[in-house]
Amino acid sequence: MKKKEIRLKCWIEIDDEKFFGPGPAQLLELIDEEGSIAKAAKRMKMSYKKAWDIIDDLNNRGQKPYVISRKGGDKGGGAEITENARALVLQYRKLMGKLNSIVEKDEATILKLL
Amino acid sequence: MKKKEIRLKCWIEIDDEKFFGPGPAQLLELIDEEGSIAKAAKRMKMSYKKAWDIIDDLNNRGQKPYVISRKGGDKGGGAEITENARALVLQYRKLMGKLNSIVEKDEATILKLL
Repeated sequence: MKKKEIRLKCWIEIDDEKFFGPGPAQLLELIDEEGSIAKAAKRMKMSYKKAWDIIDDLNNRGQKPYVISRKGGDKGGGAEITENARALVLQYRKLMGKLNSIVEKDEATILKLL
Repeated sequence: MKKKEIRLKCWIEIDDEKFFGPGPAQLLELIDEEGSIAKAAKRMKMSYKKAWDIIDDLNNRGQKPYVISRKGGDKGGGAEITENARALVLQYRKLMGKLNSIVEKDEATILKLL
């Protein structure tokens, strides 16, 4: 029996360049949970540098910051996400939930045609 | 003023490998319109070989054929898509339409947070 599935990806671009999607969303959620960029990166099996690159990109290209490092730097003082970041992640998850439920409804009908 | 947009991609995988998505959908639609694989490939600015590779993959990995070459080969006799292919493209377009309308509804709210 072959495994058949409909896949879906949704991301945000600014000036035709990827800005936000599943990776940054998960990273922000984990920073919120862990209070630390290092711990969040580790849970994503991502280097600390890679995590910082993503955060820098969000902070630089967005209008408001998304992640704030507390005093003592991340490893010392931890990090937190902003209200703006929290709202973005929430809206993105809501959108993904709606999109996934549409796909689930149509999936059986479509996969029958393969 | 920066251009911001939500992008969406939806595709079908069989055994974790891409099987159907925007490219094959457009190719099938153009074959249906043109009655010719060569003409369809040309309109997609795609080589004839690349178009055939896509069609072979669909025909081989799907349970039923999607494209049938008529007598004389494609260049002589033309090609047509099957009812199954027509149904798949239709369902895929319907699904994409629903997904896009969900994205459009949420887009302003989300892009405001960037």
